[in-house]
Amino acid sequence: MGDLTGEGPVLHPDVVPLAFLLGSWTGEGEGTYPTVSRFSYREEVNFGHVGKPFLTYSQQTWSLEDGRPLHSEVGFWRAVPAGRVELVLAHPTGVAEIEEGTLAGPSLELTTRAIGLSSTAKEVTALSRSLRVEGDTLYYTLQMGAVGQPAQQHLRAELRRAGR
Amino acid sequence: MGDLTGEGPVLHPDVVPLAFLLGSWTGEGEGTYPTVSRFSYREEVNFGHVGKPFLTYSQQTWSLEDGRPLHSEVGFWRAVPAGRVELVLAHPTGVAEIEEGTLAGPSLELTTRAIGLSSTAKEVTALSRSLRVEGDTLYYTLQMGAVGQPAQQHLRAELRRAGR
Repeated sequence: MGDLTGEGPVLHPDVVPLAFLLGSWTGEGEGTYPTVSRFSYREEVNFGHVGKPFLTYSQQTWSLEDGRPLHSEVGFWRAVPAGRVELVLAHPTGVAEIEEGTLAGPSLELTTRAIGLSSTAKEVTALSRSLRVEGDTLYYTLQMGAVGQPAQQHLRAELRRAGR
Repeated sequence: MGDLTGEGPVLHPDVVPLAFLLGSWTGEGEGTYPTVSRFSYREEVNFGHVGKPFLTYSQQTWSLEDGRPLHSEVGFWRAVPAGRVELVLAHPTGVAEIEEGTLAGPSLELTTRAIGLSSTAKEVTALSRSLRVEGDTLYYTLQMGAVGQPAQQHLRAELRRAGR
């Protein structure tokens, strides 16, 4: 992401409440869904900033079984007044989405605001996530409604901060 | 973007028609819109791949006047059958969008399929772009409808391939 993850600029005051996310995170997670077999993955997540009122974000997972790349997502976390957060994401599966929610200390709860699907994307109707940082450990869960299934738990992972 | 831009994997056959985009591109562009003064920018664009049927994409612009970061966008270019292309993008302005269109040789014409806006985003109603590569030069124009203005030319740039 080139300059997007450089740490040269001063952190914008609006994103100071999100500073606990900054850095590179690695760890493992597991996924479940009625339409697929349970799977385990390795994950790398990067939060950076460019001095503007948002964090840059990229994520990648790989199969723990054979190392092949699984999912990835990229986008931006926008800090807005009154403890609100807006997450703007692109997925290579043909999904563009916005989640919004609230920040309470080092915990975030986000739910679907908008989902756009490309012509060939699988149907996704809901995406929400909970994220919490304790020291250098990040825990998240992701709930998804997709391919005719109601919104339900899909992913859960625990990551460790590898660097800032 | 870490492994997302690694060139280790073999290019997926579906994205061979988009291989002319791969690499890092730098150059300059200019922007116009009824609601802002004409502005000039420096730009860096990166197209990569991970061996799956899409290209990874990140873009950043900086003011030519004072070097401050201006826009950025990140996402994925999906090659789909019959010369169709789907572009999935996240913008830090609170816009998540999908554009779709056709590939003809090294030229792409994409128009709005879906636009999602966060609660605090400015209104954007249409985004389309034309992109063409001649050797190691990339030309693009972007048309936008926003903040009550009809869709119209907004950006034009010429970039040179700095590396693959």
